[in-house]
Amino acid sequence: MIKACDNSGIKKVNISRINPAGTRQDSDDISVEEPLQISVGWEGDHGLQTKTVAITMRTPGDDKSLAAGFLFTEGMILSAGDVQSVRIEGRNAVTVNLNRGVRLDASLLDRHSFISSSCGACGKRTIAAIRVARRHKIQRGRPALRSSVVHGLPDTLRRAQAEFSLTGGIHASALFDSKGTLLALREDVGRHNALDKLIGAELLAGSIPLGDRILLVSGRVSFELVQKAAIAGIPVIAAVGAPSSLAVELAAECGITLLGFVRDNRFNIYNDCERIMGPVTIEAQLIRA
Amino acid sequence: MIKACDNSGIKKVNISRINPAGTRQDSDDISVEEPLQISVGWEGDHGLQTKTVAITMRTPGDDKSLAAGFLFTEGMILSAGDVQSVRIEGRNAVTVNLNRGVRLDASLLDRHSFISSSCGACGKRTIAAIRVARRHKIQRGRPALRSSVVHGLPDTLRRAQAEFSLTGGIHASALFDSKGTLLALREDVGRHNALDKLIGAELLAGSIPLGDRILLVSGRVSFELVQKAAIAGIPVIAAVGAPSSLAVELAAECGITLLGFVRDNRFNIYNDCERIMGPVTIEAQLIRA
Repeated sequence: MIKACDNSGIKKVNISRINPAGTRQDSDDISVEEPLQISVGWEGDHGLQTKTVAITMRTPGDDKSLAAGFLFTEGMILSAGDVQSVRIEGRNAVTVNLNRGVRLDASLLDRHSFISSSCGACGKRTIAAIRVARRHKIQRGRPALRSSVVHGLPDTLRRAQAEFSLTGGIHASALFDSKGTLLALREDVGRHNALDKLIGAELLAGSIPLGDRILLVSGRVSFELVQKAAIAGIPVIAAVGAPSSLAVELAAECGITLLGFVRDNRFNIYNDCERIMGPVTIEAQLIRA
Repeated sequence: MIKACDNSGIKKVNISRINPAGTRQDSDDISVEEPLQISVGWEGDHGLQTKTVAITMRTPGDDKSLAAGFLFTEGMILSAGDVQSVRIEGRNAVTVNLNRGVRLDASLLDRHSFISSSCGACGKRTIAAIRVARRHKIQRGRPALRSSVVHGLPDTLRRAQAEFSLTGGIHASALFDSKGTLLALREDVGRHNALDKLIGAELLAGSIPLGDRILLVSGRVSFELVQKAAIAGIPVIAAVGAPSSLAVELAAECGITLLGFVRDNRFNIYNDCERIMGPVTIEAQLIRA
């Protein structure tokens, strides 16, 4: 399940390393960024039709999950049952073929065009339409999560990443259970791609909604990441970096617990939804018991 | 010239701060993220026409520069001479009116639709078309730049940001001269927006091409940031974070010096173009003199 970048996501280049003492010729590992063309194939009125719906700048690897996750978190497919097959067509193209009878919203196809390595709000014709309707009701109060578990998430992620990522230039998205066990990990130069890969793999495995999972993202958390998590039914988002204002608002609207600056044995709760058992709360419970 | 986020870019929210010792109620400053609708107005065959070309998730503030910079770095306008006026229409909409006689490429308008807070490669119908033709020839060997100047850039940026940014959740783009003097600074939740604001302000001030300037970006550097810099004629890009593979390739193709991991008194040169005078080179020059 845990699948960080393999070697196809890393490239060695010659560089000069400079510090005040001097210059040294060396090589360095950098993260690969390449365009991926995502197409959809379906049975139309005139036989088999295909249409390119996005070109995203991504790190190669796990492209099937990325394509499926992208279509799902953008509202173009509703479940794994919509997908007949996902086909890799060369290094930089993938086609998601839909099952017979799946109705594709043509307006969604037209609204989408092209996106870059950090883009998830593409394809909406009006500002109001940026909010995709969320598909899964998120239940308040569960899972219950000890603050000590939250403190441990970044270290667990870092240890898993250390095996794969040498570049310092990659975003990670990871799924944990409420005890802090790492269940899945995906990496990409684009943070929305890392999350689409993660959610897409769960979708293809039939594991959506992710109602008892914790999502950890390695950087900041924007509106678009909260929206993707909401569509997958994820109740808790923990970010190593800061949230944006719209991320905080959307999390509150969806009943998602949003944690920021999860690092160095501290974190901030921007929205709780009765899930976080902090040290004080735990103490109060002991007194009551 | 230096213009980081003003107060409209920051919002105060109530949070809980958690560490192993306990929970504390507090308030926190977070970066505002809101959609901006960018439209273009021009004199068409049937009178005045307007069309929305993008909705971008951005931090409010300096929206005129953002709109002008976006149209310029996406190749929809070629110079400040194309722009008649830029009009703010409410909090979340801006229209760039073009001068009479400016021909707008309708295919570009159709290709663009919608982008998020970190999206700059939007709107290209084929993978090849992701590379926008660059407008300004970049001259090799200039400006010459001492490595000690490069070491000082992040500190200068940090001191300027400290006056404005309290959120820890914002990207910065800054322009320096070859002596390390900070000339302009822009901030945004989206890194491509921060750069579009920076370049757009220079465009509206008539300062393009930026042939003797150094660009410093606060995070990682992707293909799209190099492309935007290339269109503005910027010869040196320094990033506090890592570059992607396509960023390195495009910089080499354009003759741009690309520096990564510029922090803690060190940096890597991914592509030199005879501009960096490292400590060794300087020594050799002294011996020769």
